[in-house]
Amino acid sequence: MERRPRFTSGKEEYQFQRQGAVELLVFNFLLILTILTIWLFKNHRCRFLHETGGAMVYGLIMGLILRYATAPTDMESGTVYDCGKLAFSPSTLLINITDQVYEYKYKREISQHNISPHQGNAVLEKMTFDPEIFFNVLLPPIIFHAGYSLKKRHFFRNLGSILTYAFLGTAISCIVIGSISIYSPKENPNAFDAAAFFQSAGNFLAIFAGSFAMGSAYAVVTALLTKFTKLCEFPLLETGLLFLLSWSAFLCAEAAGLTGIVAVLFCGVTQAHYTYNNLSLDSKMRTKQLFEVMNFLAENVIFCYMGLALFTFQNHVFNALFILGAFLAIFVARACNIYPLSFLLNLGRKQKIPWNFQHVMMFSGLRGAIAFALAIRDTESQPQQMMFSTALLLVFCTVWVFGGGTTPMLAWLQIRVGVDPAEGVKQEATSQQEANSVDKSTTKTESAWLFRVWYGFDHKYLKPILTHSGPPLTTTLPEWCHPLSRLLTSPRAYGEQLKEEDAECIVSQDELALGFQEAAASALGPPATPDPKASPQAPGLDSMHEGDLGLGSYALRLESTPGQPQHGQLASPGLGSQDAPGGREPRLENVM
Amino acid sequence: MERRPRFTSGKEEYQFQRQGAVELLVFNFLLILTILTIWLFKNHRCRFLHETGGAMVYGLIMGLILRYATAPTDMESGTVYDCGKLAFSPSTLLINITDQVYEYKYKREISQHNISPHQGNAVLEKMTFDPEIFFNVLLPPIIFHAGYSLKKRHFFRNLGSILTYAFLGTAISCIVIGSISIYSPKENPNAFDAAAFFQSAGNFLAIFAGSFAMGSAYAVVTALLTKFTKLCEFPLLETGLLFLLSWSAFLCAEAAGLTGIVAVLFCGVTQAHYTYNNLSLDSKMRTKQLFEVMNFLAENVIFCYMGLALFTFQNHVFNALFILGAFLAIFVARACNIYPLSFLLNLGRKQKIPWNFQHVMMFSGLRGAIAFALAIRDTESQPQQMMFSTALLLVFCTVWVFGGGTTPMLAWLQIRVGVDPAEGVKQEATSQQEANSVDKSTTKTESAWLFRVWYGFDHKYLKPILTHSGPPLTTTLPEWCHPLSRLLTSPRAYGEQLKEEDAECIVSQDELALGFQEAAASALGPPATPDPKASPQAPGLDSMHEGDLGLGSYALRLESTPGQPQHGQLASPGLGSQDAPGGREPRLENVM
Repeated sequence: MERRPRFTSGKEEYQFQRQGAVELLVFNFLLILTILTIWLFKNHRCRFLHETGGAMVYGLIMGLILRYATAPTDMESGTVYDCGKLAFSPSTLLINITDQVYEYKYKREISQHNISPHQGNAVLEKMTFDPEIFFNVLLPPIIFHAGYSLKKRHFFRNLGSILTYAFLGTAISCIVIGSISIYSPKENPNAFDAAAFFQSAGNFLAIFAGSFAMGSAYAVVTALLTKFTKLCEFPLLETGLLFLLSWSAFLCAEAAGLTGIVAVLFCGVTQAHYTYNNLSLDSKMRTKQLFEVMNFLAENVIFCYMGLALFTFQNHVFNALFILGAFLAIFVARACNIYPLSFLLNLGRKQKIPWNFQHVMMFSGLRGAIAFALAIRDTESQPQQMMFSTALLLVFCTVWVFGGGTTPMLAWLQIRVGVDPAEGVKQEATSQQEANSVDKSTTKTESAWLFRVWYGFDHKYLKPILTHSGPPLTTTLPEWCHPLSRLLTSPRAYGEQLKEEDAECIVSQDELALGFQEAAASALGPPATPDPKASPQAPGLDSMHEGDLGLGSYALRLESTPGQPQHGQLASPGLGSQDAPGGREPRLENVM
Repeated sequence: MERRPRFTSGKEEYQFQRQGAVELLVFNFLLILTILTIWLFKNHRCRFLHETGGAMVYGLIMGLILRYATAPTDMESGTVYDCGKLAFSPSTLLINITDQVYEYKYKREISQHNISPHQGNAVLEKMTFDPEIFFNVLLPPIIFHAGYSLKKRHFFRNLGSILTYAFLGTAISCIVIGSISIYSPKENPNAFDAAAFFQSAGNFLAIFAGSFAMGSAYAVVTALLTKFTKLCEFPLLETGLLFLLSWSAFLCAEAAGLTGIVAVLFCGVTQAHYTYNNLSLDSKMRTKQLFEVMNFLAENVIFCYMGLALFTFQNHVFNALFILGAFLAIFVARACNIYPLSFLLNLGRKQKIPWNFQHVMMFSGLRGAIAFALAIRDTESQPQQMMFSTALLLVFCTVWVFGGGTTPMLAWLQIRVGVDPAEGVKQEATSQQEANSVDKSTTKTESAWLFRVWYGFDHKYLKPILTHSGPPLTTTLPEWCHPLSRLLTSPRAYGEQLKEEDAECIVSQDELALGFQEAAASALGPPATPDPKASPQAPGLDSMHEGDLGLGSYALRLESTPGQPQHGQLASPGLGSQDAPGGREPRLENVM
């Protein structure tokens, strides 16, 4: 029997080490190609293919090459050995092969049908990297960035509608998809287990609430750390801490059996809402840019890998019926989610959700990184492999067809994009007075009760506790809390308060600058009624991935405290505001 | 026989998945602690422990806890099984255990002495992560950042000395260390193999040259891509491309059998020297900050891990004699490197390397991330394990003792730090005229021949080809190259050239601004001779890790082209410069 030791000589071990570099190099190469293609597309204003779609195309081509240009390396692949004495499968196995001991690591349990002829193709094996890397390393920055760069004003303004779509909509989708796909003609379809349903709903709510609390708690700790220490003197440490604590929110939620995705999303929102205000100017820019780059790279790695996985994943199970059923199910489920809920929401909304926006919401049900990361986590059993293969095709289809079709669809439905709702209206309006009145109608939408309740609580208690801004807690908390209030209130907040008390109509630099612009604009014409249909804007349609933290542009906006008359006009003296200004109420620099 | 399946039920598989999150969480926790400690130290101006030393301390404590608070999980650990039919060790092994097939991955060949009782401790096993991650993922950003943030003016000014220490010094160290440690009394010490020595030297030079070329080539490609495309309109793509191409330099060198460390170092230097000038303002800041954060995090992960590895690495081989020998060897080798070479260099240098700087260079021979990453790559055989354990102790010792002792040492040797050599001298000087004369003496140092040759070539050919600045190639290349010259020269370079030709004494905005400051300063007093001993500054002593790219502050400096009289005074009209100004020679915004 000829002995063919592997990785024993220095040279072969060296080749083994090089493989790690080659694997990463392949991904780098794919990403470089993707970036150059994105640039080419942007430069020539091609919009028929979304950039992540491009990443998938290159991944597919590379997968095709790897699959058919490499041969299985192990001749004995597919052979099952028997080590009789073993009673269970240990995580580490020491095996004596021709008088030499080798260490083997447990990888997975496999069913017989999985022993494919490609089993031993070490190249494909190498290119299939640990799903936990997707889940624990690549996914968190994407989700966090979505939360961190969320346009919070639009988000909170439409909080009720968003929550309705998110919870009720997802529940409807789940039920519809569930009853169409996991459904089998053999079983009794009437056997609906009410107890199991409510238990699931309860579990869902408990896990959601726990994850939300975990994510917010990590953000609150970061906010307190950045508020009460002088960490802002060292922006690098500040950025590092924000990064690590936010990532820990994800990991901690996962380790605790909750869902990291929800935790890190709300961690991002909370960090942007509170911690961001405590950061040094350097860290504000640094964190924003860091997460933007990380999001960009992680997203493209995942989409490249998806393309690659179609050919390199060695245990695909394609079931035409299941795939068709899945496609059908997700469309029916989305329709059942969007249209009925929009109808219900429109009953209560002053600014209705128009039909064309409902169609876009229907159309924009894209599946991407999250679906993939969830599906690739478990691919041990055959049903799981079928799920994974189907999810992969769903992502391909929705990204290419719907992602690529978004621009024509928006044009066809006559929806303008890339404009702030208020900005868009302003551009449509012919004079500044018109814009003022529109602002008033806009603020009416903002005064939805959920928003008002939240805003009041946030302004009076959370902002003063977690940041340097807001009214001092001594003015908002009851008398007996004063020792604590004094401890928690930032000296800067007292400063702002004093300024407010000194001069009734104090005007900051920003206000003056804006006041000057508005004054110049107001010289144009008399007030006019706005055209509410001038440019309808859908709720939650702002791309979460546009990378604008949305804080800079809001710094110039002034809004009164809740309970006071809403006003969109400035309190600059000499400009003659139509509404009563906030008066002695402190004005916030960052409302959201 | 009782069957104890592992990872088969959904619940156990779920726990397996959670372990990945827990492992990352432990590192996040260590890094958060480290950051808070660094802040505390910085805040209280404690300098007895370097920040990486702190990371190691926390790693050690965590390692201690993991080692002694966790029990081996596999009861059958240490048992070697026999799978008779196998003739070699395949990369994937399918094993039938109680009628269920499990897949096992090849990990390593082990010698009998390695089968320790801790073999099966899955927790320790989990915390020991793949050495290739250190080498291919964590090390490149550290080295790249060193190159990218290198203070190039000081580097090139002392190029000769640096190369002498780097090559000749390393060679001397290698020989000394080699003859003290790999030396054994049994063998004949006179058996010096001249052929093997020259072959090694040849190999070293070939690999170095190849790696240097590879790294520079990647940077040149990046420079050309950023120069000839309008990628700067999309800073995110630009940053992504710079990041990926630079990392590819490392991976490609490794895959080609060269050394990635050298490749990525020179890639960083070249990127900073050329590509940086082509980047958009956004990308300049973004890349600088991105690499700074990545360097900071990667460095701290590695040092945390080192602390951890002392207790969690399961195959330590501590040999007191070898460890003592290694410590002795590196000190003797460094002494043989620094003192004789400094003596030789001082024979040719106008600005001598003073004794106190030589002592600091002797003292600053710290071992860190590179030594560790190299040692951990191969820990299969017993000598390799002994090397790894010894390297770990060496890093601990040098980082704690020498890293912590640096501040007292510098104070004791009366060396001021944190000042630019020229700046330092300027601060010492009592008037601006004094500073002028000092500048003249400083530029003499710069006119070392190696520097001049390089500077001329770079200014005439490389800068104009790879960036938008420098003289048009049509003026520097011979007539017959003109078609190519026109193709490669940036339109902006012609613009600069035209401006130069239009006005003989053209003054840019920067020059005017600086001129104003200098004029204000020059009103103070008459010229005076400088005190050359005012503040001696060592060559190459600028910390490579200080994170200052050093380009911003140099943008205001003007230097004449080589061959012209050196001048440190400005050519602003009306200020009356002592030296003849560069005249028609184009003035560079970034000399280095």
